[in-house]
Amino acid sequence: MALHCELVFLALPHKTAMAYVKPLIAKGLKVVDLSADYRLPLDIYEEFYTTHTDVENLEHVVYGLPEMFKEELKTAKLVANPGCFPTSAILALLPFLSQRIPNTPIIIDAKTGVSGAGKKLSEVTHFVNAHENLFAYNPLMHRHAPEIAQKIGVDFEEVHFVPHLVPITRGMLSSIYIQVNDDFDAFTVLNDFYKDKPFVRISKNPVDMKNVAGTNFCDIYVKQSKSSSKKANMLFISSAIDNLMRGASSQAVVNANLMMGLDESQGISKIAYVP
Amino acid sequence: MALHCELVFLALPHKTAMAYVKPLIAKGLKVVDLSADYRLPLDIYEEFYTTHTDVENLEHVVYGLPEMFKEELKTAKLVANPGCFPTSAILALLPFLSQRIPNTPIIIDAKTGVSGAGKKLSEVTHFVNAHENLFAYNPLMHRHAPEIAQKIGVDFEEVHFVPHLVPITRGMLSSIYIQVNDDFDAFTVLNDFYKDKPFVRISKNPVDMKNVAGTNFCDIYVKQSKSSSKKANMLFISSAIDNLMRGASSQAVVNANLMMGLDESQGISKIAYVP
Amino acid sequence: MALHCELVFLALPHKTAMAYVKPLIAKGLKVVDLSADYRLPLDIYEEFYTTHTDVENLEHVVYGLPEMFKEELKTAKLVANPGCFPTSAILALLPFLSQRIPNTPIIIDAKTGVSGAGKKLSEVTHFVNAHENLFAYNPLMHRHAPEIAQKIGVDFEEVHFVPHLVPITRGMLSSIYIQVNDDFDAFTVLNDFYKDKPFVRISKNPVDMKNVAGTNFCDIYVKQSKSSSKKANMLFISSAIDNLMRGASSQAVVNANLMMGLDESQGISKIAYVP
Amino acid sequence: MALHCELVFLALPHKTAMAYVKPLIAKGLKVVDLSADYRLPLDIYEEFYTTHTDVENLEHVVYGLPEMFKEELKTAKLVANPGCFPTSAILALLPFLSQRIPNTPIIIDAKTGVSGAGKKLSEVTHFVNAHENLFAYNPLMHRHAPEIAQKIGVDFEEVHFVPHLVPITRGMLSSIYIQVNDDFDAFTVLNDFYKDKPFVRISKNPVDMKNVAGTNFCDIYVKQSKSSSKKANMLFISSAIDNLMRGASSQAVVNANLMMGLDESQGISKIAYVP
Repeated sequence: MALHCELVFLALPHKTAMAYVKPLIAKGLKVVDLSADYRLPLDIYEEFYTTHTDVENLEHVVYGLPEMFKEELKTAKLVANPGCFPTSAILALLPFLSQRIPNTPIIIDAKTGVSGAGKKLSEVTHFVNAHENLFAYNPLMHRHAPEIAQKIGVDFEEVHFVPHLVPITRGMLSSIYIQVNDDFDAFTVLNDFYKDKPFVRISKNPVDMKNVAGTNFCDIYVKQSKSSSKKANMLFISSAIDNLMRGASSQAVVNANLMMGLDESQGISKIAYVP
Repeated sequence: MALHCELVFLALPHKTAMAYVKPLIAKGLKVVDLSADYRLPLDIYEEFYTTHTDVENLEHVVYGLPEMFKEELKTAKLVANPGCFPTSAILALLPFLSQRIPNTPIIIDAKTGVSGAGKKLSEVTHFVNAHENLFAYNPLMHRHAPEIAQKIGVDFEEVHFVPHLVPITRGMLSSIYIQVNDDFDAFTVLNDFYKDKPFVRISKNPVDMKNVAGTNFCDIYVKQSKSSSKKANMLFISSAIDNLMRGASSQAVVNANLMMGLDESQGISKIAYVP
Repeated sequence: MALHCELVFLALPHKTAMAYVKPLIAKGLKVVDLSADYRLPLDIYEEFYTTHTDVENLEHVVYGLPEMFKEELKTAKLVANPGCFPTSAILALLPFLSQRIPNTPIIIDAKTGVSGAGKKLSEVTHFVNAHENLFAYNPLMHRHAPEIAQKIGVDFEEVHFVPHLVPITRGMLSSIYIQVNDDFDAFTVLNDFYKDKPFVRISKNPVDMKNVAGTNFCDIYVKQSKSSSKKANMLFISSAIDNLMRGASSQAVVNANLMMGLDESQGISKIAYVP
Repeated sequence: MALHCELVFLALPHKTAMAYVKPLIAKGLKVVDLSADYRLPLDIYEEFYTTHTDVENLEHVVYGLPEMFKEELKTAKLVANPGCFPTSAILALLPFLSQRIPNTPIIIDAKTGVSGAGKKLSEVTHFVNAHENLFAYNPLMHRHAPEIAQKIGVDFEEVHFVPHLVPITRGMLSSIYIQVNDDFDAFTVLNDFYKDKPFVRISKNPVDMKNVAGTNFCDIYVKQSKSSSKKANMLFISSAIDNLMRGASSQAVVNANLMMGLDESQGISKIAYVP
């Protein structure tokens, strides 16, 4: 029996994936690449990573965030699956970009479960060090900031990103602070923006990790500061995803579904692992 | 044998402590009050809590943060022991107030262990709900913002405070973001500010909860954004305390030591509970 | 549109379910009852619980452990879904009953995640009490011992059962110790016994909770003591289940599948929630 | 200033400590050795570990369990500090040895926090593998069984020892099952046995890990099976220690106190780390 393969998922380390993508595309296969190799424009990629050896495909890649590029994904040959931090931050920011005061800081205080640090053994991920503990790492210098900034069309020096490691196996919560105009209702804006999106849920209460565990959902909550004084027009956005699912594997399957002409929800569980 | 008592610790719910403080002070006793009843000026207290019934003592209270009011504490009759959130935020902000750009937002993204939510039984603190979970609560409306703002001399609408519940028994980490001038070295400023303070430790690496567990220490780390562009002068400050110790009981003992003419470190453990 | 219902799942507290089962069966519906009301013979039930008010159906109930009663389940009208402790203990003991030395103690040291204690709020299940903690409860008196003893045909005074609460959300591990003959190979016996059973997996290494989380599997490991001396013929059996799945809901669905003439694996996930 | 040293604590890996002990003793120093090198008689040590190269000192060593050898410790030159598993098991078993039915199995189902597995990095102790997980390891073959058997004067084939790794940082709970006579009150026996011992506490309720965390206490609970039938005379004993304190460091300090003529409680904290 001949097995016919049309699409490949590639989960390789950053900087090594492009060497595999190039020949696969050349053979006419479709590829969903889970590395960072095709997520950024050439100049930014080379500033933060290394020389890119597959510029041709880089020019035709589609960024695999279905809420942004659903139509493009349907005809894509190569898809760059987003990182978990950018997924949770971009989905939270997208609805409010037009209300944001230009040139003000975008603060992203992210919290990730330990699976986000990978399977490699290290002091930091040893149970006795991670349990009952909590800390920031690589503050203000994590390389996910450029990916976020570029996708939302903002100078990356305006994006201030600090990830924290929390004693949770999986899950990611991004707490985002931006300054906005005072003449709109944030909940309505958010709700309308994602009205027809099957994998974004808007919540009237602060979102948590348990309700997205094991699913492809991104849950989002928003809160405006109450005062009418100019200086208090702060918007707090909280978004929750399962870093291993929406932040990696299940989002890759949604992208593949779209690339293959299938329904995007095909084979994607919507039942959270609770409790 | 007659037992002679000179000082009383009061750990009562907010709004109920003042009824007990008044007669104790009248009898000539010294009091360290762990409630919020004497932490704020009259007008702010009454806006956020209730009518104050002991205005006379409120006028003479000393705020029990030894790094700010050590001399005043030595002669105080009544001390308002700070809340855990304000302790961790104020100690982090104090060294940088003169470098801060006026009228820019102060973002405090705080993470607290579950003991910070008290002993009362609730859905939120049930093990199966809190474990492997994480979420914000009372975003932008928690009443610790006024306590922080008032002590550092800032309009409280500039302080944007969001606490998060993390699946840790005790500990508190505050991640603070402020905009600052570009002509100073934050680490040196921080280090100099706390040079002679026995219970603040400056760290060259991001601070964590384990290293302060069981102690009265406040560990502080600071990071400036690297770029020279105006918009990138963001300062990230991370401070860690044990919410039950520096955030409550051991800070109360330090205050009592000072009030009684003892060395402030008397009876205070400095060995963290690691691992 | 008329909705036709043939089978009902009942998840009611012990002692209250029988009042609902009786009329449902009378109407010709099939019932999977998740309470303890139909798990025991009349005399034992009434000794440990209360007066039974539905003796007629109790006489025709089938115990819903598919590995024991698959054929009977296919024609059952009423099924008593086993408790989580008995499920994990009985499946571990069944293969070795004929090798056991009569009248010697059966020791069951069980460890259950906190979800096994139910959703009710209590001091014991408060996060700050359960986390980083571990203890036995109701030692040697838990009422699951009779259910285990009766199903494996042993005097219940020979079954010594001690449950422990562990700081895990879900999962159950039973560590079982029995004295056996010395002339058999335990691994082979175990492996042969469950050769054709889709929801029992035999492991050459000690089993753990993660590999069964979110599934209907019962994983079993066995170890014989190595020495040839008579006194050392101890058998250690370790069995792992997800208490909420194999110990409750998914086992109920397997039972319902059999009762409805469906394949027993219909709709049952076999992919564990790892990590 | 000359620093005068009279006693050395040695915390070295098994098999390597004896090379250091020998010359220290020869110089007239007192030694508390935390390895296994002096815990066992020569023949048993060599069976389970390696050739012993310091037989002379091995013959004069005192086993550092103060409840057993307080008088001998006062004049000891070399003390073998017990392992954490033997400490918790021996203290639980000692009071009941005379009531035990000879030749019946002693079952020790032990649960240890992850710090008991040491600081070395491994798959097993990676947070994402250890958290929300639980399993037995080295069942029935762990080398602590001989240490336990030899100290309580029992054939080591009668001791059946199975350790389990639990997702807790520190702490150790031993669940012990033995068959006993039926004519004594276990609680009274236990209570009387440890009446004057400062570091053993008897509990009327099952003991837990939190109440011993950070202390040198061993908490013990006992439960007799209720029935009067011969086969049901099972005794369940539960003992809790902090594996890093009573199971290692603080017990070493107690031993050193006794060796130096000090009060055994000198410098030993009795306040548990709760919550």
